[in-house]
Amino acid sequence: MAQAAGRQSPPAAELPKLQFVPFSSALDAGFWHELTQKKLNEYKLDESPKMIKGYYYNGDPAGMPARLTLEFSAFDMNAPTPAHCCPAVGTLYNTNTLESFKSCDKKFLLEQAANEIWDLIKSGDAIENPVLLNRFLLLTFADLKRYRFYYWFCYPALCLPEGIPLVQQPVCLATRFSLIQIQSLQSAYDELCQKEGLTALPYFLIKCHDDSVLVSLLKNWDDFFPDPKQKVTLAVYDPCNFAQYPGWPLRNLLVLATQQWGNRLHIVEVICFRDRTMQGARDISHSIIFEIKFPQVMLSLDCPKAVGWEKNQKGSMGPRMVNLSECMDPKRLAESSVDLNLKLMCWRLVPTLDLEKVVSAKCLLLGAGTLGCSVARTLMGWGVRKITFVDNAKISYSNPVRQPLYEFEDCLGGGKSKALAAADRLQKIFPGVNAEGFNMSIPMPGHPVNFSEVTMEQARKDVAQLENLIEMHDIIFLLMDTRESRWLPAVIAASKRKLVINAALGFDTFVVMRHGLKRPKHQEVGDSPCNNPAGSADLLGSSLFSNIPGYKLGCYFCNDVVAPGDSTRDRTLDQQCTVSRPGLAMIAGALAVELMVSILQHPEGFEVFYPGLIMFFLSVWLLTSVLPVPPKSLTSMNEKDLLF
Amino acid sequence: MAQAAGRQSPPAAELPKLQFVPFSSALDAGFWHELTQKKLNEYKLDESPKMIKGYYYNGDPAGMPARLTLEFSAFDMNAPTPAHCCPAVGTLYNTNTLESFKSCDKKFLLEQAANEIWDLIKSGDAIENPVLLNRFLLLTFADLKRYRFYYWFCYPALCLPEGIPLVQQPVCLATRFSLIQIQSLQSAYDELCQKEGLTALPYFLIKCHDDSVLVSLLKNWDDFFPDPKQKVTLAVYDPCNFAQYPGWPLRNLLVLATQQWGNRLHIVEVICFRDRTMQGARDISHSIIFEIKFPQVMLSLDCPKAVGWEKNQKGSMGPRMVNLSECMDPKRLAESSVDLNLKLMCWRLVPTLDLEKVVSAKCLLLGAGTLGCSVARTLMGWGVRKITFVDNAKISYSNPVRQPLYEFEDCLGGGKSKALAAADRLQKIFPGVNAEGFNMSIPMPGHPVNFSEVTMEQARKDVAQLENLIEMHDIIFLLMDTRESRWLPAVIAASKRKLVINAALGFDTFVVMRHGLKRPKHQEVGDSPCNNPAGSADLLGSSLFSNIPGYKLGCYFCNDVVAPGDSTRDRTLDQQCTVSRPGLAMIAGALAVELMVSILQHPEGFEVFYPGLIMFFLSVWLLTSVLPVPPKSLTSMNEKDLLF
Repeated sequence: MAQAAGRQSPPAAELPKLQFVPFSSALDAGFWHELTQKKLNEYKLDESPKMIKGYYYNGDPAGMPARLTLEFSAFDMNAPTPAHCCPAVGTLYNTNTLESFKSCDKKFLLEQAANEIWDLIKSGDAIENPVLLNRFLLLTFADLKRYRFYYWFCYPALCLPEGIPLVQQPVCLATRFSLIQIQSLQSAYDELCQKEGLTALPYFLIKCHDDSVLVSLLKNWDDFFPDPKQKVTLAVYDPCNFAQYPGWPLRNLLVLATQQWGNRLHIVEVICFRDRTMQGARDISHSIIFEIKFPQVMLSLDCPKAVGWEKNQKGSMGPRMVNLSECMDPKRLAESSVDLNLKLMCWRLVPTLDLEKVVSAKCLLLGAGTLGCSVARTLMGWGVRKITFVDNAKISYSNPVRQPLYEFEDCLGGGKSKALAAADRLQKIFPGVNAEGFNMSIPMPGHPVNFSEVTMEQARKDVAQLENLIEMHDIIFLLMDTRESRWLPAVIAASKRKLVINAALGFDTFVVMRHGLKRPKHQEVGDSPCNNPAGSADLLGSSLFSNIPGYKLGCYFCNDVVAPGDSTRDRTLDQQCTVSRPGLAMIAGALAVELMVSILQHPEGFEVFYPGLIMFFLSVWLLTSVLPVPPKSLTSMNEKDLLF
Repeated sequence: MAQAAGRQSPPAAELPKLQFVPFSSALDAGFWHELTQKKLNEYKLDESPKMIKGYYYNGDPAGMPARLTLEFSAFDMNAPTPAHCCPAVGTLYNTNTLESFKSCDKKFLLEQAANEIWDLIKSGDAIENPVLLNRFLLLTFADLKRYRFYYWFCYPALCLPEGIPLVQQPVCLATRFSLIQIQSLQSAYDELCQKEGLTALPYFLIKCHDDSVLVSLLKNWDDFFPDPKQKVTLAVYDPCNFAQYPGWPLRNLLVLATQQWGNRLHIVEVICFRDRTMQGARDISHSIIFEIKFPQVMLSLDCPKAVGWEKNQKGSMGPRMVNLSECMDPKRLAESSVDLNLKLMCWRLVPTLDLEKVVSAKCLLLGAGTLGCSVARTLMGWGVRKITFVDNAKISYSNPVRQPLYEFEDCLGGGKSKALAAADRLQKIFPGVNAEGFNMSIPMPGHPVNFSEVTMEQARKDVAQLENLIEMHDIIFLLMDTRESRWLPAVIAASKRKLVINAALGFDTFVVMRHGLKRPKHQEVGDSPCNNPAGSADLLGSSLFSNIPGYKLGCYFCNDVVAPGDSTRDRTLDQQCTVSRPGLAMIAGALAVELMVSILQHPEGFEVFYPGLIMFFLSVWLLTSVLPVPPKSLTSMNEKDLLF
């Protein structure tokens, strides 16, 4: 330790000065993990100082740095201190930006902490409760995007102006104390710990009566050392592993002793109590003992100078950085990165956003085409973990450029099942998602089932499967390419009181809507799954911007006078599939999910009664207006037409 | 051939009837390919009959079906007929749906064609130009989604009511003609072909004078057979490969001969002229010859009954289907499938859409993040083939759920370069795309370059590279995550008069806009790249729906009073990246591309002067309105605020 290994031979004229081994901060991954959680969920943009807790002990092999450890429990001031460890209370300054981390006034922070310690010394509080001398500061900046943590640790130590002359070099306790004395010291120490209910005594007093060694608390000085001429032994619980030097905690004790008892002390014996259990064997015999000449300074009322900012790995004054991304499990890393982006929304923009409601939503996507793929991607962006696809089609060569979960490879050999391939892709995008695919047909009105036993049985199975899937999910997305395929799921979902979000595409128009739910909780089904009359008086008079209670909202079929029937027969090539502006599915898919999220955030949820939106019926007609000849369907539209 | 192999031994009372081998339609892949192109680009929804052209010859080995071949050139009525082939003119009925294919009135079509042939016979046109007897019909339905082609071929043959008695069974020409006669026939035939400028004579007349064989056209009957008692030999260019039967073309000739010369004929010799070149050797000696008793029917003026619809592979009356998807190169299949979806837009919805302008647009995407990925996906949907990414970031764990070109695997080991990975992904989605990625930084105002030679040199290289990339592309998308990074590309693009589309995200607001271009064509650059004063009088009074000339439009920087500067310094975690509703990037990215497409469709393009849109500044506030506490930025918005 370069800091401590200074002058070892005293100059001729004066005694050598006592030197100290500083703490090495030991901030483990658990600490950073917990800081991450606190930052994301609790502190957010709050930069105010926070109380944290560390501990130190003498458990490392000789020659190793003296560690002050901060772990997972550092943020819990009530967490128990590990056995034989001495607690230290610290102040966390977690900045919001690297810039404020860098520009933080570290001199000021140190002085502030030193003043506090000085006040505790002067007031006698430190004598009553000497653990208060173990203060530390921790300045941090957490780059949670990259899992890099910048930090600078400080253990403020007050300095005696002239230093502390060393009368007798440190030696191993065993060279001064007999084995019996050592055992006696250990027993006395343990007894006092137990009596005080502490895991370790940071500072204490020692005196010997022949083989018997007695210990006491600082506050009992007068009783313990009644005779002013008596030999005084100060003891410190020492984390240092060097045979020649005491650790950092002794510094504030010596300042306290100087301020408190300096006028009556001359030569003082110091024992750096080193308590270690290695391989099951308790040992304090490697503790060190030495004598100092007490500085005869009259400490003014001003706080002495303080030191304590830790040097970095290069040995110079500067912050340290740990990059935890490399040592984290990539899948966990992905999960926490995804969560991070979501949580950032709650910091400033929508503090009331209840992400849990979104993340825990179980979503069933009926259709894994252009809309299904876009909806799934947006759900992933919102952190939704449970996504299930239903589709009976195979991936064809024209799909991948418009259906953003498929690739060219998926089309080979006749094409993979869309539902299964979509689920696989979600896992590839984000291993934390729970995605499933069901390659099945949805029975449709107008598409008669041929009355063979086999096809009848299959249709029955499909209905049961669909009913089961709807039961197991919270939100049902209707994303198919025909109108009639939306009917049965809409009926079942209404009967099970699930939230239904429907999206459908035209060429440059689309509809994104939520289905309503009747107020009375009994199942009624009919042509219009929700049984709300379309065009009721309540609806006619309302605008998009007024609040319409959920029970008055219709379903996809309420809004149309045409009964569901086979819309696929007798279609030309351009009518067989939805020919749409390629951007439309992404717009509609994204809006469908945003609509779902907004509904979930409403305090009354979607189950009962709430104001909210009914229906989006927008178009890209704004854009289309520069097309030389706007399609006929658009020219007649005005805003009112678009809404109802 | 079941049709022809009927009764071979005559019943006691009467002569056996002549039987004919029908055509086998031979529609090669080139024909279907060309039909696909015609359907997509020319016919679209037009179901009216189309003239097409096929040919037949006698080139296949003995026993093989008589083919009528339709190939690539079938749609070009001016295409030359291959050597030694006889042309046949047909009518294509291509239906729009499988239903109308199936329900087509085939009896009516056949009768209609028969009537036309009958009219040609009666009018004498068929004698003048006997190739007119070779008519065929082709009924098709092209399922271009699945590359399945349904078709039904018909070669209408008029029937003589009683059939044609066979006086002498067919034998090989060589058994009747001497070698010299055969050579003489071949020479005479070739001479007449050459004189007439034909590749083959479908029907002709033959007479022998000892070793010399003469041939003539039907129309020269009277000169060729001046003596009514003279032996008459009718010749037909015969595609049939069976030794015992003539092919289908003879049928209409015999009806013509009956109608025309029936009153003077009794026994007629028929030569089925089979002209074949195999392994370099010309051969007509396998032609067959036989004698028929001319039917003494007085053909009424009504058209005789006709037959001709082809049987399918199962031997029953029904359509045939070819599935070409299996024999096509998957990559080509992907390309044509992608094109198909686009072309369908032109059929009915936007007939004036000029896809070529879109498909050939070379797009440079500056930024490959949430916006860049969504823009690229929408460009792919529009069939854009040249997409180049510029980005200097690596893919992090939070990216894949929001950036739809990346997967979890791309994040491992520190993350791949976004620009390169995005280009790779596009190739995986659609091998026909020409995608490139450049992992480079864009020099930005407010981000000073440190004055070392290395970094200066790098900055110079970056500027040159950027300038070069902008030069090589038509449309520049600004999709970065800072404002200032948009400045230099906007300046360069303005100076090179490129279309700039800018998209930027807020939390639930976004802007999608196109940059204007000054009218005078000289380069002026300044703080505001397009040098159009913001808030000019022209702009202030206009609404989104009025036409504003392109030269009056501003750029991203015109619309803001803040000069570009470093916006990344001193940012908290939630300010470092764009925290946005996850659906927003898809919406904005898709709209940016739709805006580009619409501008490209304007007849004046984007180079000069045109009405059009300036700017989208929309939000998902409609959706947000059900959030319990709408974000502050939204509560004060009204529609007017959103637009300007």
